[in-house]
Amino acid sequence: MGNSFGHSFVVTTYGESHGAAVGVVIDGIPARLPIDLHEIQTELDRRRPGQSRLVTQRDEADAVEILSGVHEGRSTGAPLAMIVRNADQRSGAYDHLKDLYRPSHADFTYDAKYGLRTWQGGGRSSARETIGRVAAGAVAVRLLREVAAASGVSAPEIVSWVDQVQDVKADVDAATVGRADIELDPTRCPDPGAAEIMTSRIEQARKDGDSLGGIVRTVVRNVPVGLGEPVFDRLEADLAKAMMSLPATKGFEIGSGFAAATMTGRTHNDPFVPGPDGQPTTSTNNSGGVQGGITNGAPLAFRTVFKPTATISSAQSTVSTSGEAVTLEAKGRHDPCVLPRAVPMVDAMVAIVLADHTIRQHRNSLLG
Amino acid sequence: MGNSFGHSFVVTTYGESHGAAVGVVIDGIPARLPIDLHEIQTELDRRRPGQSRLVTQRDEADAVEILSGVHEGRSTGAPLAMIVRNADQRSGAYDHLKDLYRPSHADFTYDAKYGLRTWQGGGRSSARETIGRVAAGAVAVRLLREVAAASGVSAPEIVSWVDQVQDVKADVDAATVGRADIELDPTRCPDPGAAEIMTSRIEQARKDGDSLGGIVRTVVRNVPVGLGEPVFDRLEADLAKAMMSLPATKGFEIGSGFAAATMTGRTHNDPFVPGPDGQPTTSTNNSGGVQGGITNGAPLAFRTVFKPTATISSAQSTVSTSGEAVTLEAKGRHDPCVLPRAVPMVDAMVAIVLADHTIRQHRNSLLG
Amino acid sequence: MGNSFGHSFVVTTYGESHGAAVGVVIDGIPARLPIDLHEIQTELDRRRPGQSRLVTQRDEADAVEILSGVHEGRSTGAPLAMIVRNADQRSGAYDHLKDLYRPSHADFTYDAKYGLRTWQGGGRSSARETIGRVAAGAVAVRLLREVAAASGVSAPEIVSWVDQVQDVKADVDAATVGRADIELDPTRCPDPGAAEIMTSRIEQARKDGDSLGGIVRTVVRNVPVGLGEPVFDRLEADLAKAMMSLPATKGFEIGSGFAAATMTGRTHNDPFVPGPDGQPTTSTNNSGGVQGGITNGAPLAFRTVFKPTATISSAQSTVSTSGEAVTLEAKGRHDPCVLPRAVPMVDAMVAIVLADHTIRQHRNSLLG
Amino acid sequence: MGNSFGHSFVVTTYGESHGAAVGVVIDGIPARLPIDLHEIQTELDRRRPGQSRLVTQRDEADAVEILSGVHEGRSTGAPLAMIVRNADQRSGAYDHLKDLYRPSHADFTYDAKYGLRTWQGGGRSSARETIGRVAAGAVAVRLLREVAAASGVSAPEIVSWVDQVQDVKADVDAATVGRADIELDPTRCPDPGAAEIMTSRIEQARKDGDSLGGIVRTVVRNVPVGLGEPVFDRLEADLAKAMMSLPATKGFEIGSGFAAATMTGRTHNDPFVPGPDGQPTTSTNNSGGVQGGITNGAPLAFRTVFKPTATISSAQSTVSTSGEAVTLEAKGRHDPCVLPRAVPMVDAMVAIVLADHTIRQHRNSLLG
Repeated sequence: MGNSFGHSFVVTTYGESHGAAVGVVIDGIPARLPIDLHEIQTELDRRRPGQSRLVTQRDEADAVEILSGVHEGRSTGAPLAMIVRNADQRSGAYDHLKDLYRPSHADFTYDAKYGLRTWQGGGRSSARETIGRVAAGAVAVRLLREVAAASGVSAPEIVSWVDQVQDVKADVDAATVGRADIELDPTRCPDPGAAEIMTSRIEQARKDGDSLGGIVRTVVRNVPVGLGEPVFDRLEADLAKAMMSLPATKGFEIGSGFAAATMTGRTHNDPFVPGPDGQPTTSTNNSGGVQGGITNGAPLAFRTVFKPTATISSAQSTVSTSGEAVTLEAKGRHDPCVLPRAVPMVDAMVAIVLADHTIRQHRNSLLG
Repeated sequence: MGNSFGHSFVVTTYGESHGAAVGVVIDGIPARLPIDLHEIQTELDRRRPGQSRLVTQRDEADAVEILSGVHEGRSTGAPLAMIVRNADQRSGAYDHLKDLYRPSHADFTYDAKYGLRTWQGGGRSSARETIGRVAAGAVAVRLLREVAAASGVSAPEIVSWVDQVQDVKADVDAATVGRADIELDPTRCPDPGAAEIMTSRIEQARKDGDSLGGIVRTVVRNVPVGLGEPVFDRLEADLAKAMMSLPATKGFEIGSGFAAATMTGRTHNDPFVPGPDGQPTTSTNNSGGVQGGITNGAPLAFRTVFKPTATISSAQSTVSTSGEAVTLEAKGRHDPCVLPRAVPMVDAMVAIVLADHTIRQHRNSLLG
Repeated sequence: MGNSFGHSFVVTTYGESHGAAVGVVIDGIPARLPIDLHEIQTELDRRRPGQSRLVTQRDEADAVEILSGVHEGRSTGAPLAMIVRNADQRSGAYDHLKDLYRPSHADFTYDAKYGLRTWQGGGRSSARETIGRVAAGAVAVRLLREVAAASGVSAPEIVSWVDQVQDVKADVDAATVGRADIELDPTRCPDPGAAEIMTSRIEQARKDGDSLGGIVRTVVRNVPVGLGEPVFDRLEADLAKAMMSLPATKGFEIGSGFAAATMTGRTHNDPFVPGPDGQPTTSTNNSGGVQGGITNGAPLAFRTVFKPTATISSAQSTVSTSGEAVTLEAKGRHDPCVLPRAVPMVDAMVAIVLADHTIRQHRNSLLG
Repeated sequence: MGNSFGHSFVVTTYGESHGAAVGVVIDGIPARLPIDLHEIQTELDRRRPGQSRLVTQRDEADAVEILSGVHEGRSTGAPLAMIVRNADQRSGAYDHLKDLYRPSHADFTYDAKYGLRTWQGGGRSSARETIGRVAAGAVAVRLLREVAAASGVSAPEIVSWVDQVQDVKADVDAATVGRADIELDPTRCPDPGAAEIMTSRIEQARKDGDSLGGIVRTVVRNVPVGLGEPVFDRLEADLAKAMMSLPATKGFEIGSGFAAATMTGRTHNDPFVPGPDGQPTTSTNNSGGVQGGITNGAPLAFRTVFKPTATISSAQSTVSTSGEAVTLEAKGRHDPCVLPRAVPMVDAMVAIVLADHTIRQHRNSLLG
């Protein structure tokens, strides 16, 4: 259970790392949305392995096929199903993992929960599962764009980037940074100086058989006012769930985030000022774009932390499936730092959350 | 929409701050669970206003009535409905708020989303809404206890406390701290030295017409292995959503949390060692008790940050509902720091998440 | 579980026959819907006991109170909670039922499923549970009316009536019959001749200590084209579920219904003809207003069968809870025929289904 | 929306008649269930076209591939995805349908709802969509069997057959008829005499360019007591929805069904008698195996009516998409009577409902 996300734009993913395929079914796309295979593939290319020397060298084209739900380039209202066949399955490469539990992986917990596990490459817990999310995210982005166009307003612009790797912190102007800036460097850090240091750190980690953690920062501009469904489906609650459902995430904060602990109401409250169009706007954004669980029109601003990749090429103490202490020498291909490839995953989940809430909020226009 | 939480233990809350009542309906309680009104009331007493000089002086007994779903002290399998009448409704006290938007409150966003709002005391966005959650949490705790008893294991022990207020940080032994320690002081900080400073800070903030933020820390011991439903309903994802659905929260982190950014795989990975009963255990707990979205038997360990109360007794710049700049002089009763009363809310949501996942995981025992 | 109905207009009911109260929470009402307590009470009065000599003489005013979700007469977007206190609880009247299972009641199955039951008056399986549905139905009707008004079209007109009691069949012009016609007679049969015979049959059944079954027929005129969500949430599927979730129902048929078995494609197919406004209409309505699971603009036309009331005042063979053969002499107050009171329950569930699907279909207007 | 069915055993189907593929994702299968591709394919072979001269001659092997969720022959707890590629797509054969609305098909309603439609072969409204259901049903059957085996009881035996075609009614002993009896004849009517007449009627209808309706009857023996989730998810409500979500169904009745209208309580009530194992059993089964929405251990007994196939090879009056009266000469391949192929679809949906409710009921064993 638990493989669907969303109430009104429902994304269901399936597939394991070393099975036949991974894929997604999206139910709830409004009819007549333009569906562009190229757009979807482009997003998948951003997350695919082998795209740069910083990421895992597993060689997968991750070519997506649309199976249903599209007629003459537009969504039909029926489920949109997409599939990506798994190609580079070196199952033999995982034989040595069959009888032990890799530290900080899902090996033990899957075995304990389900009584069995697909030990090849992490099975369902592999980040390969996010392929379906990224494909769905591309559709969600298009939905947001078309809805905005239908209303004559600017489309939400979702921009995520690698803001920190280890102690290397980027200096980025969140008000202006765009997708093109992020894509300039394989690190997906738009601060060239920081990106350079991050690159050397990641390469050094790979040489050392180690791995690195870091932080992805996200801003979303041109967010419609009114998204979010209190009390449980507050927008920040759904964003937090979306982020924390990604592999390797350990925390989420929005607006002031953990810094709010040390602030006082006087400094934290965002004063309202009359906006250019008469709409109230805030002169600061400690709220991070949400108040009372609902977007207020200010940019969404949040951060998600990713742990260092659990797979490392160093000897580690662990236990076998029969309960004995053993030593693991990891051999598989892996990312020494998941951050660059995490960016499109974060972007996708943000788009899915916003698409879901855009449809949900639409009900309030029913009475004119 | 969005007023239900959970898949298999479904909690639906209703009610506004100054309406007739607040309440909750729980659907999915397994039959024959002992239901103890006193237990539920005790939890409500932990969150009620007026319990100490540190919190709002609104005077509400918050006496709960069970309306359905119980027969001779046990759950019947039918929905358990509970209601708490609102008593101390000084609606007139809010008249001055009718025509303006309080900074960092939900006034503007509710108006923008719904086209109207209940401006008395925050309406649905009031923390009074959490009464239903806390009542449901008490039932969830009992469920966890009875399930454990039926299996002859120790019940999960959920312990949350105020770990930080402003820059005052508690020094607490997370391995041993218990509910009784937390309840010793009105701050709900079990470090007496820190609690004393927190108390003076909160009292000073009240005098200054200001408010304070802080962090609630939670550990859950005796967690069954196997809770969590990948990929979207990972346990940490549902916990994050639960926390971020509480009023005033700005962030959530589990295990290493944001500190994971600066760690490497070698230091972050939790080595498995053979446990006393042959089960693998980890010698560290950077995972925070979850791996691959599933509990591994180590204590759940996470932190939730709360912003300073938005209501302050100082003049603030804001705008009127007609779009003009105005000054707000807040007068209502309020908490200068929500942290002490947030503790039972956090406890409740944790229990609800665990109860929901306990039922969900039970399916995997169907085949023996 | 299973106490909520609907995807986007979610109705959750709670309460037992002889508990403190019955009630309902509606989540998903679009904001700014006028909410009129009088309208809701009027529908409850149609279903309440004691309204005529044909129905149970249990004396309950069934006065509804709105607890939340309304501000100055309009829905706020928050859950609308309503409660009806149980008044006439003669619990002692049921003592003789504690230790046996009444035939064709839910006594045995509740005990078997849950391990206990509230044996007073049927507990949760009592038709008293439908109070919440009827209250929610009144809100749904208002929603349908306001949505139609906002579009400048005629509102859906839901008309259900008692079409058959035993072998007494009404002769009614489904094209023109209105709510006022139905309310003219306590039987809720708008054919005066049939109503008179039905009345004498029902009175005779009461004298005989027996009970009668029958059929409720429903037409809905002015149904918007396009309601229904294939493939599982076809409109007729949701209608069937709605009807079959009412107490005492044994069957549902739409359009040609069971008569379709003996028809051929040539006679069953509904020819399209150009309609007055250029829209295709059908010259017959064997489809019953739905094609492919979606409304086609023709009137919805369906029938629901209700079994004879299980409670009868005659001696019956049954078994005790300890498994021995015993004789039951029923004594409680009851309806000798549920049909007249079933009409408002059917009306309510139809309105709820249509409201839910109206909101769901609205998404397809998102792109203009 | 609306393409998922079930709460705890969730079946999501996708795919159109003439798209790339149809398929299904099942979420919620308990771990370690044996998954047998051959079993699944066998069920698909029962519904595939071209299996006899009575059904459509569209030639599709409908070979199923499992994409995920299985490891060494057992379910992993992850989603089980299955796909069937569409092979015999003569899209050109449908060109003449592009600009008109076939009577009693979904052409008009899909166009009206979604603003476009896949006019080739019915698109999503095609019975080809049920491939995913039938594949999921085979998994559900296996689940029911394994759950029964784990408890040492007999597995539920689901037996559906063609009970009526036009006015030809079968005479079948519902207490003993088995799957093997049904499969003896291509009509899937286990009464040889009736089957012979049905066959000639169907062949005549094909020659006449006409089509026939009929009734599928279902019994389920060895049903566990306690399945069904009042009040909305009563077992009969979910069965009714399941049946009415199948293409071409017009009605559903359980137990006494529509005959209940003419019965009285004395004749309708099912007397309880002490059963062989001390459990109460009923001496009649007007209830159809459910009381108060919950199974009572008696066989489930219900009937589903299917309309005559809408596609006929006769000239029909209809309108064009531009609103003009036109004549349609149907040419596509089709079933002159859907009943024989409807049997495995009904079987599948019954199994899915029972699997879903088996998991849901399992919660009530949580407390021992």
